[in-house]
This record gives sequence, structure tokens and C-alpha cells, in this order.
Amino acid sequence: MCRWLAYSGSPIALDTFLLEPEHSLIDQSLHSRMGVETTNGDGFGVGWYGDGPEPALYRSTSPAWNDRNLRELAAQVRSGLFLAHIRASTGTAVQQTNCHPFRHDRWLWMHNGVIRGFSAIKRELILAVDPDLFASIEGSTDSELMFYLALSLGMDDDPVAAVERMVGLVEQTAERHGIENPLQMTLATTNGEQLWVFRYSTEQCSRSLFYSTDVRALRALYPDNPRLEGISDETRLIVSEPLSDLPGVWNEIPEASCGIVQAGQDELRPFRPRR
Amino acid sequence: MCRWLAYSGSPIALDTFLLEPEHSLIDQSLHSRMGVETTNGDGFGVGWYGDGPEPALYRSTSPAWNDRNLRELAAQVRSGLFLAHIRASTGTAVQQTNCHPFRHDRWLWMHNGVIRGFSAIKRELILAVDPDLFASIEGSTDSELMFYLALSLGMDDDPVAAVERMVGLVEQTAERHGIENPLQMTLATTNGEQLWVFRYSTEQCSRSLFYSTDVRALRALYPDNPRLEGISDETRLIVSEPLSDLPGVWNEIPEASCGIVQAGQDELRPFRPRR
Amino acid sequence: MCRWLAYSGSPIALDTFLLEPEHSLIDQSLHSRMGVETTNGDGFGVGWYGDGPEPALYRSTSPAWNDRNLRELAAQVRSGLFLAHIRASTGTAVQQTNCHPFRHDRWLWMHNGVIRGFSAIKRELILAVDPDLFASIEGSTDSELMFYLALSLGMDDDPVAAVERMVGLVEQTAERHGIENPLQMTLATTNGEQLWVFRYSTEQCSRSLFYSTDVRALRALYPDNPRLEGISDETRLIVSEPLSDLPGVWNEIPEASCGIVQAGQDELRPFRPRR
Amino acid sequence: MCRWLAYSGSPIALDTFLLEPEHSLIDQSLHSRMGVETTNGDGFGVGWYGDGPEPALYRSTSPAWNDRNLRELAAQVRSGLFLAHIRASTGTAVQQTNCHPFRHDRWLWMHNGVIRGFSAIKRELILAVDPDLFASIEGSTDSELMFYLALSLGMDDDPVAAVERMVGLVEQTAERHGIENPLQMTLATTNGEQLWVFRYSTEQCSRSLFYSTDVRALRALYPDNPRLEGISDETRLIVSEPLSDLPGVWNEIPEASCGIVQAGQDELRPFRPRR
Repeated sequence: MCRWLAYSGSPIALDTFLLEPEHSLIDQSLHSRMGVETTNGDGFGVGWYGDGPEPALYRSTSPAWNDRNLRELAAQVRSGLFLAHIRASTGTAVQQTNCHPFRHDRWLWMHNGVIRGFSAIKRELILAVDPDLFASIEGSTDSELMFYLALSLGMDDDPVAAVERMVGLVEQTAERHGIENPLQMTLATTNGEQLWVFRYSTEQCSRSLFYSTDVRALRALYPDNPRLEGISDETRLIVSEPLSDLPGVWNEIPEASCGIVQAGQDELRPFRPRR
Repeated sequence: MCRWLAYSGSPIALDTFLLEPEHSLIDQSLHSRMGVETTNGDGFGVGWYGDGPEPALYRSTSPAWNDRNLRELAAQVRSGLFLAHIRASTGTAVQQTNCHPFRHDRWLWMHNGVIRGFSAIKRELILAVDPDLFASIEGSTDSELMFYLALSLGMDDDPVAAVERMVGLVEQTAERHGIENPLQMTLATTNGEQLWVFRYSTEQCSRSLFYSTDVRALRALYPDNPRLEGISDETRLIVSEPLSDLPGVWNEIPEASCGIVQAGQDELRPFRPRR
Repeated sequence: MCRWLAYSGSPIALDTFLLEPEHSLIDQSLHSRMGVETTNGDGFGVGWYGDGPEPALYRSTSPAWNDRNLRELAAQVRSGLFLAHIRASTGTAVQQTNCHPFRHDRWLWMHNGVIRGFSAIKRELILAVDPDLFASIEGSTDSELMFYLALSLGMDDDPVAAVERMVGLVEQTAERHGIENPLQMTLATTNGEQLWVFRYSTEQCSRSLFYSTDVRALRALYPDNPRLEGISDETRLIVSEPLSDLPGVWNEIPEASCGIVQAGQDELRPFRPRR
Repeated sequence: MCRWLAYSGSPIALDTFLLEPEHSLIDQSLHSRMGVETTNGDGFGVGWYGDGPEPALYRSTSPAWNDRNLRELAAQVRSGLFLAHIRASTGTAVQQTNCHPFRHDRWLWMHNGVIRGFSAIKRELILAVDPDLFASIEGSTDSELMFYLALSLGMDDDPVAAVERMVGLVEQTAERHGIENPLQMTLATTNGEQLWVFRYSTEQCSRSLFYSTDVRALRALYPDNPRLEGISDETRLIVSEPLSDLPGVWNEIPEASCGIVQAGQDELRPFRPRR
């Protein structure tokens, strides 16, 4: 199990929420309180939109807390849209190609959760990937395969529907193999313009997911950080676990929901797998 | 393109042929003369039979020449049957799960060469892997997939036939996609008792493969190494490139051949893809 | 802060106490209960006596829990005398040359603890290293420097006295710089024949250190492991933190003591810094 | 032995000269023609001035040619002043803290060459480092020590004089130990405003060093790269080995010289060690 953070808003240095000594994702990598594992030391990644149409990636198999290059990079790079993820492997190889976020064209994708009984249904699922996309799969995780299934099922046209179809397909396949409660997920994905986040599990007992309520509350979290002074009211942070106990900062995303962060009004919709 | 070495014979410390300053695989990793690339710095691996029924693996993404742990390990571990491989990636990710040798149960497998047009036919080939073996594939190389195809096509019963079927399948699939001369390979595989090596390419212009002729000639290669004094007459070294220019040490394995190193008389047979 | 384990006794596979799913050092690397940090993911190392006069080392900057090569190696290598260490850096670079154990000739050395105010006194301490040994220092830790100081102060002749002089020197130097309570240490060192362990801190409040009492109690810890059936009565395990709560297995080494594990009767002596 | 590149001029993406398939530093890392070793695969680094007063660093022990993060980063980061270095170790540990460039406050430093007999004189040289700087030394190379000696000898006031004193000190110390021709170096150092490059060796037979003559010639090297269209006439590239054979692009820096790249007229001066 893993921890992640998605940011959308005024361009800001990546280290703001990743590397602060308190209330940051790195801090969580050593001391997660809500995660299944307290240590998330099996690699990490950050994906951001910068120069050029495609997002950039920095992924490493080191624990995030001792990676010096991450500190250098995160202090230099500014972005208005980025995803960051710290990994706790449940057995799959610790290698860059298994680190989130995953990228395809303009898309980024990251996941916390699991497909139960994955080894039993991996082959069937992989067959459902569009043959033209197949050779782009580089790693061996369930998370990356979920991404390629969603891409095959229409991400470019309707991301919410594509993810609903992907989940439907996974559940249907698992059902045929007698696997109970196959899917557990909190997901974030973006095309560089909108950001979609999902909280869902077959057993309706999903891992946590929170979004920041209000920019003023977010600023209060980091009173000493002048960078947060100028950020816009539309700035949003979505996190798998609150970065602090500060009351008023975090709203929980309800069970079986999808949130859409975008220019103008954000949206929160029920999420229903499609078969 | 890569370089490799297979050893079968009297138990010997792994560093004997891997790490000597001259006439060793590591020496070749920096200065290959026959390889397509002169540098093989994209990871390496060694697999050996020791305690227990399954072989052990040490694989790393560091260049072999600067990996200190390899030096320590290779000086301590003795084995009578081992495979060693240094990798030059042609674009596939540099990660442990893409380093040779690959292992499944008692089997080890390593490869120098390429499936041309691999991304176009990877999906079809992967479908031909036995569903029970499918989830064991960990990396993304053509070489590992060739291994799982051969395992699916009968390695346990008849390794030569299984490899001939695997090559037939690859060539047939490539043909349907209009890919010319799809396969280039020198292969070594072993079940811990026998060692099979193959030299083959569709275009009948295969990469080099050599076996040591005679233990006395091998000893002459390393006159200062007392370890070679006591090795048996059945000891064999098979290498993708000669470890020296010393005349009389190396015999080239003919184009489209399979060699079998085993107790008693070794064999050399023609290799014919089966469709 | 770190965790470590020293073994002396009948030759045994390294994974016995390092990698068992419960009651092992790796288990502690994720869930230390007595350590200052609960996570020890900043590299690890194991040093053992095998072939040849000098011990062998395997050290890596990966977290021990996800290092596949460690699992392979530790299942294959057997030794009657080995040291293993998992590291939690307090800021010093995560690199192989900072991983314990350290080696010089026949000696191995590992440390849990700290020299407080190290950056202020490092230069003076390094000047006290024998000039002939100076160039062998490879890393940047206080622990390695303590080793080279002890070597300079007579390890080959009288290891206990050498460590007492080293501690005296560190305390004296720190005093001149107004540093309070400069030293905190549990140490293990061996020349391949005897094993010395130390528990000491200037403030007389040292980190924990335990030795196994009785081989029968040790066997009871791993009831399913047949390897422990045949081990001799002289077998000893010394650990920075007990590998289990099982009563009767562990004795605490007293504050300011030195233990000597050797053929015949082991010894436990008071430890007194020498100035 | 190593290869390096220093850039000063209009802000440009780092990948321009580092990662082009031809005529780039990475290309040289595999196929150096003038270097002593043809392979430079023992780590690399890039240091650049971006946000904030101190330069940023990205250093890695992977071979530069297969480091994916370098490709991502170098495509995103733009700078008007950066140093890049690829390393071929001559035995010193391959670790981030031994990768160039080295950084202290606003300074960056990189080196190609060697102090001969370094292990014999390292201790004496390290004693000459300002005690306040001593604890900042992180690695074990001669190159980093040369940097700290120069910092101790007045870099902030007069960099050329400081380097001349450092070289004088090294030569004098070596002389006392009977080491002939102790120093071989091409150096680059910068404080974020000016860039100093040095070519010197005790034996007056220094490794190569070249600077770009004219921006038009530089543009001709990369005819398809629109980024070079807009760069200013003051843009300079200094390289340890020409990035191409194109006539008119490169001028050799003379034996025993120092070049200063700065706003206004650049300078070229004779270099004379000071004792």
C-alpha cells in the first residue's frame, strides 16, 4: 500500500508539499498513520506538467526520504499540476517501471490499492488492453495495467466512464475466477488540464481520500511558507491521508465517488462500475 | 547486445572466469571486440547451482565492472554449473527483472540477440505462454519471453525440441507481420544437470559462440591460477566471445547448431526451427 | 540509529536470523520497537568469514527488506561467524562506503549510536588515525572513523584496550570542544576468531544490547527451522534488540560492559574509557 | 578519467548539449575518442544555477546513457550556466558523493585528471583544508579535495590565485614524497557569475580542453535544433573533448592556461602554480 498527493492550482515548487519536515508526503513515507503499512520505502515518483505537451517524470527505487536528487529537483521545479506517490510494495519488484505515476502521452496515473488475486487474472486483463497500447506497458504492477485498461476503454473521450468500465471489467473477470472483493483503489489521473480522483472498493470499504477545502486553511498549514501567500483560490490538494490534524483543512471524499478538479466549479459524482 | 559465459565442470569460484583482469567476462564488458556494442554496462547477472534444488541469482543494474558486491560474492561462491551475462540494452528498461539469467524452478536461461519488430508481435507471443506460467514473467525483455515460450512448449521433456518450437513460433508470428529475419540468438539454458547452448539466426548469420576445447588449453589461459590445476577433463566453458586469442583454446560452434554439455560425451546437433 | 546482529557458532546459512519472516533483523528493519527510529531503511550490510583469510562483505544502499540479492545470497552462504547491520542514517550520505560492517584486513566492525558534535571534532579525530591507515578510510561516518581510531590504537594487540583508548580519545576531544555526552555506542568487532561486543555511553544510558542465553532457548525461537537442530552449545547471538519476547532467550548486557565470545568460556568485563 | 562540459550563455534546456544523439556528452560517455578510457560509465552529474542563490545538483551512479531521470530532468530544466560531468573511476568508490560537480555555497567545481600517489599524500593535503570547511567534505576523491583546498586558499577573493596556490601545494607536497608529475587536470569552476576553466599538468602534457569559437559555428553543429537560434553572441561552451569534427567550431585552450568566461570580454591567461 502506498500514499499519494495530487496538486492543481497556481504554479508552485514541488517541494512545498512533498518535502516539508512536517505535514508532507515524505514525512508520511516514514510515519503513515492511516496506511496499512507504516513504512513506504519501496520507491517513489513525481510527475509534473512543465515545458512541452507531455508531462515529465522523476521516479526512483530509493526511499523518498533519503533521495538527494529529489530534494534538488523538487526545490527547482515549479508546476501548477503534479502527482506524487510513495510506494510500499506488496511483493512486486521494486523497479522504476513499477513506480507511480505512470505516463502515456499527455496522461498521468497513480494508484493506491490492489487487485486481489491479480496473478490469477492478469493474463485475461492484459488481453483486454488495446493491441496498439500493449507494447507500451513497461512494468509488472496491477496499477499500470489498470491504467492501460482505462486508456483502452476510452480515457481520451470520457475518463470517468473509462475508469468505470475498467473497474467493471476487473470485477467481472475476478467474479469468473471466484475472487471476492477484487478491487481496492484510490486513483488520480490527469491529462494536464483536468484532474480526476476516485475512491472505490468492491467491498465498499475504501482506503481514505481527502481534498483540501479552502486555500486559507491550506495556508494555515504552512504559516512560515511565503510561497503559499500568492496561490489562487482554485488551488486544490488531494491526498490519500491528511497532511495534518489541523481542523478545517481536509474534507473526506465519500465512498464510491469521483472528484473532478477543473477550471471553474469542481465536481463530485458517485462512481459506479460499468459492465 | 550482450556477452555471456556458461561453465560446467569441477566446482570453482565464480570469479575465475568472470573477474580476472584479463581474459574475463568483465574485461569484455568494457572492451568487447566482437560484440555490436563495445560497452556492456546496462546490468549483469550470474546464476549458479549451490545449496538447495533451485539455482541462486545475483543480478544488478550497475555495470559489472564497478559492482563491489559481485567481486565479494564471486570470490566466495563456488559452483560446478553457472551462467553469467553482461547486458547492453537496446532500449528496454535497465532493471533487475530484465537482467539475465532468468530463472524458473530448476531452470536458468540467458540470451544474446534480439527479436526484431518485438513490439509489434509481443502481444501475440505472450498469448502463447501457458496461462499457468504467465504471471511469473517479471520483466519486459524479448529474452525472458522466449524463455517462457520455451517452457510452455515442453522444456521439461525435451529442451531442444522446445527451443526449436519457440523459434518456429517466433518466426511464424513475425512472418505474418511482415518482419524479415526476426530472430538472432545465442542461448544457454540448464536444468542443473545438463547445459544446452544454441547458435541460430533466421538470416543464417548468427552472432558468435565458442566452446573450450580441452582443459589443458583452458589452464594455459590462466597459468597463474592454481584453481585450474585440479579441474576435471569434463570441464567446459562456452562463451559468446573468446576470452583470449590463445590458439587452440576455442572452437566455434557452427551456424544453426545446438550443443549439449552433459555427463559422458557432449553432443553437437544441427538446430532446425519447428513449426 | 541502527540495528545489528552478530553470530558466532556452528556454520549456518546467513538467512536464518536475518530473513525469517518473524524474529529476524529484517523484520526489525521495518518494525523496530526499541530503536530511536522505527524504520531502518538507509542501507544494510553483512560481513562473514568464508573462503580465504579476509572476511567477505555484501553491502547495499537499498532497504534490506526489498533487496532480492540479499535473499539469494543469504540462502546460499553459510558461515560460523558473521555480522549484520541495518542502517538508519541521521544525515550522512546513504552510500555503500557508509554501510556497516566496515572491514580492514581480518577485522570487521559495526556500530549503533553516534558521536555527538561529530562535525566539530571530526578533523581532530581523523588526525589521530595512523597515517598508514588514513587512506583506507572510504566513507564519511563517525562509525568508520571510530574503527580506524581503534585500529590505530592497538586493535591487533588488545582489542578491549584499543576500544577503551578510542573512547577515551573521543571523550577527551569532545570535552575540549564543550560537547556534552559525546558518545553513544553498541559495538561489535571481530578478527575472525574472537568476537567483542561493547555497550557504553558517556551519559551511562546506553542503547540496548542482548546476548542469547542458551542454545535450547534459541532453538525454541525457530521451532520449524531444522538448521538449528545441530548447532553447538557454544553458539551465541548478540543483538541490539531482542528478536522476540520469548522469555529466557535473551540476557541484557549491562551498562558499560564488554563481552568476549570465544572458544571456551565467554567473558563479560566492565568497560572503562582510557585517557 | 572523465569527460566534462561547461555552458555559459543564454538560458537553454540542459539536454541540448548533454543528450543529443550526436555531438553530445552522453554520446562521448560511450565513445570517447580522446579520453584515456573509451567508456565513462561510473556515474555522472550536472550542476546548474536556477531558482535561489545556490546551484542545484543532479548526480547519479548510473551510467549517464541509461539514466531515464536525467533525460526527463534535462528536457525540463533551463539554465544559463551549468556544468556536466561523466565519470570513469580509477578505483575510488562509485557513489554520489564522488560524482562531479561538487558544490559549496555558490560554487561548483569539476575535474578531469588525477593526483598521482594520492593515497600517500591525502592525509597531508586534507590537513591543509580550513578546519571550518573540513566537515563539508563528503566523498573520497582527489577532485573534491582539490576543491576544498582551493576554497581554503582564497577562492572567494581570487579564484585564479586560489587554484594556483592549490596546485603549488599539491606539487610541493608530492615533491616531498618523491612523487613525479603529480598533477594532471582540466578544471571548471564557477560562482554563478563567472566561469573559470584551467588546463594544466606538472609534466606539461595536459589532457585536452576546448572552447567554442563563435555562436554561429555552434549553431551549425545542431542545424535542426531551433533552441540555438536565439542564443546570444556571448554564449560559450567549454568541453574536455570536441563534440564534433566540424572545422571552425573549437579552439584548443593552450597548455598551462586559465580561461575566464564572463560578461564582456573573456580572458585567457597563463597558469602558474604558486608556492
